[in-house]
Amino acid sequence: MSSDENYKIDAYMMLKPIKSILILLLMVSIGAKTEAQNTLPVYLNETATIEQRIEDALSRMTLEEKVAMCHAQSKFSSAGVPRLGIPENWMTDGPHGIRAEVFWDKWDQAGWTNDSCIAFPALTCLAASWNTDLSSLYGKAIGEEARYRNKNVLLGPGVNIYRTPLNGRNFEYMGEDPLLSSRMVVPYIQGVQSNGVAACVKHYALNNQEIDRHTVNVDVDDRALYEIYLPAFKAAVQEGKAWAIMGAYNKYKGQWAGQNQYLLNDILRGEWHFDGVVISDWGGINDTKQAIYHGLDMEFGSWTNGLTMGASNAYDNYYLADPFLKLLKSGEVKEEEVDKKVRNILRLVFRTNMNTKRPWGSFATEEHALAGRKIAEEGIVLLKNKNNTLPINLAKTKKIVVIGENAVKLMTVGGGSSSLKAKYEISPLDGIKKRIGTQAEVVYARGYVGEQPKAQDGLSTGDSITDNRSADQLMKEALTLAKGADFVIYIGGLNKNDKQDSEGNDRASLSLPYNQDQLITELTKVNKNLAVVMISGNAVAMPWVNEVPSIVQGWYLGTEAGNALAAILVGDVNPSGKLPFTFPAKLADNGAHKLGVYPGKGEEKYNESIFVGYRWADKEKIKPLFSFGHGLNYTTFEYGKVTADKKDLTADGKITFSVNIKNTGKREGQEIAQLYINDVKSSLPRPVKELKAFDKISLKAGETKTVKFTIDKTALSFFDPKKHDWVAEPGDFNALVGASSTDIRTAVAFKLK
Amino acid sequence: MSSDENYKIDAYMMLKPIKSILILLLMVSIGAKTEAQNTLPVYLNETATIEQRIEDALSRMTLEEKVAMCHAQSKFSSAGVPRLGIPENWMTDGPHGIRAEVFWDKWDQAGWTNDSCIAFPALTCLAASWNTDLSSLYGKAIGEEARYRNKNVLLGPGVNIYRTPLNGRNFEYMGEDPLLSSRMVVPYIQGVQSNGVAACVKHYALNNQEIDRHTVNVDVDDRALYEIYLPAFKAAVQEGKAWAIMGAYNKYKGQWAGQNQYLLNDILRGEWHFDGVVISDWGGINDTKQAIYHGLDMEFGSWTNGLTMGASNAYDNYYLADPFLKLLKSGEVKEEEVDKKVRNILRLVFRTNMNTKRPWGSFATEEHALAGRKIAEEGIVLLKNKNNTLPINLAKTKKIVVIGENAVKLMTVGGGSSSLKAKYEISPLDGIKKRIGTQAEVVYARGYVGEQPKAQDGLSTGDSITDNRSADQLMKEALTLAKGADFVIYIGGLNKNDKQDSEGNDRASLSLPYNQDQLITELTKVNKNLAVVMISGNAVAMPWVNEVPSIVQGWYLGTEAGNALAAILVGDVNPSGKLPFTFPAKLADNGAHKLGVYPGKGEEKYNESIFVGYRWADKEKIKPLFSFGHGLNYTTFEYGKVTADKKDLTADGKITFSVNIKNTGKREGQEIAQLYINDVKSSLPRPVKELKAFDKISLKAGETKTVKFTIDKTALSFFDPKKHDWVAEPGDFNALVGASSTDIRTAVAFKLK
Repeated sequence: MSSDENYKIDAYMMLKPIKSILILLLMVSIGAKTEAQNTLPVYLNETATIEQRIEDALSRMTLEEKVAMCHAQSKFSSAGVPRLGIPENWMTDGPHGIRAEVFWDKWDQAGWTNDSCIAFPALTCLAASWNTDLSSLYGKAIGEEARYRNKNVLLGPGVNIYRTPLNGRNFEYMGEDPLLSSRMVVPYIQGVQSNGVAACVKHYALNNQEIDRHTVNVDVDDRALYEIYLPAFKAAVQEGKAWAIMGAYNKYKGQWAGQNQYLLNDILRGEWHFDGVVISDWGGINDTKQAIYHGLDMEFGSWTNGLTMGASNAYDNYYLADPFLKLLKSGEVKEEEVDKKVRNILRLVFRTNMNTKRPWGSFATEEHALAGRKIAEEGIVLLKNKNNTLPINLAKTKKIVVIGENAVKLMTVGGGSSSLKAKYEISPLDGIKKRIGTQAEVVYARGYVGEQPKAQDGLSTGDSITDNRSADQLMKEALTLAKGADFVIYIGGLNKNDKQDSEGNDRASLSLPYNQDQLITELTKVNKNLAVVMISGNAVAMPWVNEVPSIVQGWYLGTEAGNALAAILVGDVNPSGKLPFTFPAKLADNGAHKLGVYPGKGEEKYNESIFVGYRWADKEKIKPLFSFGHGLNYTTFEYGKVTADKKDLTADGKITFSVNIKNTGKREGQEIAQLYINDVKSSLPRPVKELKAFDKISLKAGETKTVKFTIDKTALSFFDPKKHDWVAEPGDFNALVGASSTDIRTAVAFKLK
Repeated sequence: MSSDENYKIDAYMMLKPIKSILILLLMVSIGAKTEAQNTLPVYLNETATIEQRIEDALSRMTLEEKVAMCHAQSKFSSAGVPRLGIPENWMTDGPHGIRAEVFWDKWDQAGWTNDSCIAFPALTCLAASWNTDLSSLYGKAIGEEARYRNKNVLLGPGVNIYRTPLNGRNFEYMGEDPLLSSRMVVPYIQGVQSNGVAACVKHYALNNQEIDRHTVNVDVDDRALYEIYLPAFKAAVQEGKAWAIMGAYNKYKGQWAGQNQYLLNDILRGEWHFDGVVISDWGGINDTKQAIYHGLDMEFGSWTNGLTMGASNAYDNYYLADPFLKLLKSGEVKEEEVDKKVRNILRLVFRTNMNTKRPWGSFATEEHALAGRKIAEEGIVLLKNKNNTLPINLAKTKKIVVIGENAVKLMTVGGGSSSLKAKYEISPLDGIKKRIGTQAEVVYARGYVGEQPKAQDGLSTGDSITDNRSADQLMKEALTLAKGADFVIYIGGLNKNDKQDSEGNDRASLSLPYNQDQLITELTKVNKNLAVVMISGNAVAMPWVNEVPSIVQGWYLGTEAGNALAAILVGDVNPSGKLPFTFPAKLADNGAHKLGVYPGKGEEKYNESIFVGYRWADKEKIKPLFSFGHGLNYTTFEYGKVTADKKDLTADGKITFSVNIKNTGKREGQEIAQLYINDVKSSLPRPVKELKAFDKISLKAGETKTVKFTIDKTALSFFDPKKHDWVAEPGDFNALVGASSTDIRTAVAFKLK
């Protein structure tokens, strides 16, 4: 035997045990599974790809089974394939908490006792935090709640753009800016979906008012559509990888959004390559052929053929039920049309209910309540704080008078489909009393009483507060108490009643309801130590703004509302929220109202085009009541000079802007630094500036940090309707860095080559 | 460099890529998982054992969370641990199909449209098939239905022994014999649980009558307890590995069975080492301390403290709710007591809802309907067939008259908790008409009308058949039609009304209701081509037995009832069922009634001891109307001489008996050969013979097969109450092989050494 041969044998001997280990490992990791998998049909085989499983399942389904998946079987569920063991789909209203269980075919609550959820702050509050980590936390937490309740689709988040402050549903959305809402919606979706629960982004698209929402046709130019109204949806789909999207109620180009060739087929699937499921808004479908051909997958909430609600076969009369089946059977519609839909629905099922790796969720936990509180605390916006009226100096305060109905009104109930059955809700008054304890006396006067809530769409509209005293008596009581107090906290604003912050209708005016303006004005006359807390999801007119030293925008804060608000008022938490939309001084300062036909008689033309929110104020040089991006702090920040790492940006390059920010006050705080881009000259009209980046940083007293913003040419682009594409024109630009859209602290010029 | 060094380097070089593969595989198969697992708490880690996961979960739970798991939160559900993501438990009434969804806290159906199930034949029918493969099929199919409906506990099967033919709930059980019910229950449980759904064996124990079920104390000697009433439960636990068991309503030794030291702690857990969960029957718990200390885990259906049903906090007043918590908090009851229960409940959860490997189930499928039909066809018993009246010779039959209410009455509805909302139910008349088609004219006459069903426990009791004609008119019509027919099929028996085959009450007598005896007697006078089909789950008296040429025991057959029955009647299927209980000619022929105090005033003494069913008839030499194990066939079987493979059985040995069975008729058929053991002499009184084995075989015309029965000394044992153990006394035994308990064809003697 030669030494060469010897070597070969020895090497082989060495390899043998390793080979055995290899085989063993293969058996463990692959082999053992393969045996079981051989007996499994492909659609149940978890080692197959989802696309393989979809095709296999589809090939086994009857036409009836396919059609059954395309429409509701109850208020919030749709059929699976019972024969194949493919589970049903169960939806839950979001986006602020998991809706209580309702009856099979009624909107009323089913009286379960295991479904009292954590109510999270409204999405306006989340947007006001400008903190993407909190968006992720929000999504993860609410997704866990949905998962534990065995819901596989959360009907949210909402990202319709804040076009008019009258829109009754603005509180469910993320403000007026496409960039801010895009950045905030992506982590929310990812958080939800990490639970194996689909986020259903809504309401796609152009559902920017509630009045006539079922009939209005929106006439918007392509620039406004692509630059203002679509970016958050696009980010949801392309970055958030949303598994579901909801078609809106309104029409666009004469077709309802849920059965819309342009929005669904051309843009969503064609341009964005969406592979998830398109779900109708409840009752948003009106035509079988359009529902078949224009990209809808699942029809919910329809009442067709005049059938009485509650009829056991009402669902068979849905546009995508028997009428669809009939067309398929006659051959008038090809089976491929239903197959397209079922593929999307099966994809949803494999991503959610049939994903055996997904976690189990959790429900109504302290952890979720605390997440909600954190979001509330970071979303509250300190609008004005003359002479550091806030935080309340408890060392000098013996008697606090709390005034206003919203100090005691439940705000997790009402407002439409986002109404919740919360495990608990700390009212502002409760939160203040709990925080103050024995440090000061806390006295309450209602001051005014709103009208009783009216039920709409069968939804509960909250508590019924009755107070038989006259408005005069209530005001007198409040003023008397206020006069003798060391500090007055007024807690008013809007509520979740019809025609306020509520689905299905818009507000009648920008003004506060229930004569609050007079009450606040009178209060300013009797006590200068006054903080006005506005509970609302919308901007309100403030004719008393100059008289009131301190104003807080309190939103709808959910389960921990009162605790969060008290923490801000006494300074346990330093406010760090900034407005996600402009507060106009008056309606006419808003482009839609200035130029518009709002609410439009069947046709709503968006005459203001891209000039929404601060874009309109900038263009028209209108000073808002409070600006987009505005929010004060109990400390102060000084911005250094912004610098760019290069003078010229190339088409495929990046440019980074740096600015030092220093905490010049006496306590730790968070600042949201905002980067706006100004296009000096362009072939098409452009806004004076547009938000292109932001960063929320925390600074200790005296600390300085450098904030860096890196952009590429997409931040300089506009949508060219003739090219039907985004265009970045070479030329001069300015990078503006500031603390709000009207508080630009520093700027630097650069060029796009 | 020496060649040795060279070798080492080369070998190392060769190993390098393999090392990389190894590492890669390790990462794939173990490493990647490990990383994720490190971040997972043990209770969520699927590679940990269930016991490890239980202890980890338990260690994280608060006292309140533990107590919440031990009692209902709604009619059919109990809490999980929402904070930890441990799912809720959802029970469904079985054992014949998945009960329709009910409201949260009401017995009424919740009006869902996705919950119409397949109704399987009643368990008496399954038992009558003597086919363990069908038991497995039944369990698997019903388990799949439960799984798809997201129920993790099926409240069944029932294996209470058929002690008296008056027991209103016999139809839900598996007959009078401990061996037959043991052999049949085990595959059912295994089938159910293969779906990750727990079978909850019921009603443990001694729930052998419905009258006074909530108050009666059963006084039974240990021999009867161990030899007759417990074996099926023991087999369910030890061989079937049942994950749940239900405590019965009645008392034993003065304690309710659901909170019973002897049955639960001593026998179930102590002697049988049951590690599953003990669930109360609904409303079966009456004392907190006993519920705590006597082995119960989960309390359901209680109405305590006089709270109105429907009160949202009624469940907090359960014996194992706040009263339990209070005792735990005061320290009067140690935390270990609740921990014991929660361990069992968590074990249930890990075995079912948190088992990610379990299949997805399927619901209301054709496959399940056909499984039910197969069971029905094999369970129907041909009791009598003089002159081969059956099958109906369609070549000679032009007009068939079907008579009797049960030909049209829905039998899947009513009867108590086993009432179903079936996807469909083929009535006997429909089945016959469908099968006969145009081959003969089929005419129907009701003949009699039963009383209208009454609702009990809020359960639906089926259709309301009204016929305003008098009994005389109906009978006259039936007789007139029968006279002119070529063949008469009478379809009567009992139904699911109160005091018939129905939960909550017993029958008033052994006789048929609604004057059927007279009608049948009159029918025998007008037409000799008569088959009487008895639809019942109980024996009935048949004063007309000698006049009627053909009698079929038709049970409650579920969704496919009519199709199965028609197939038997026309001979598409050769009947092969045999009775799982004795039909006594009169009540006094039953030991419980002859010696008994039935129904007992608070105390029911089982004076007949072990002499239940055929054991009583054998001992007293009473000829039954129809014997245990009896059932005819459209073919005939000849038994050869039984032989033993040895003369003497040793204490640790086995003995095999062989017998040839030949199909001596003209068509293929199945025979159920039965092995009974006769103990020639024993120190304690023993039954004349006891069933110890059986085999159902299929034989073609003229074919012979050898059936072999192998037993060991356990088949010869009796329970010695003094030793509190099973004893096999050496001595002489006979092995008897036959076609029924009174049709022994061959015997062989042997000895136990």
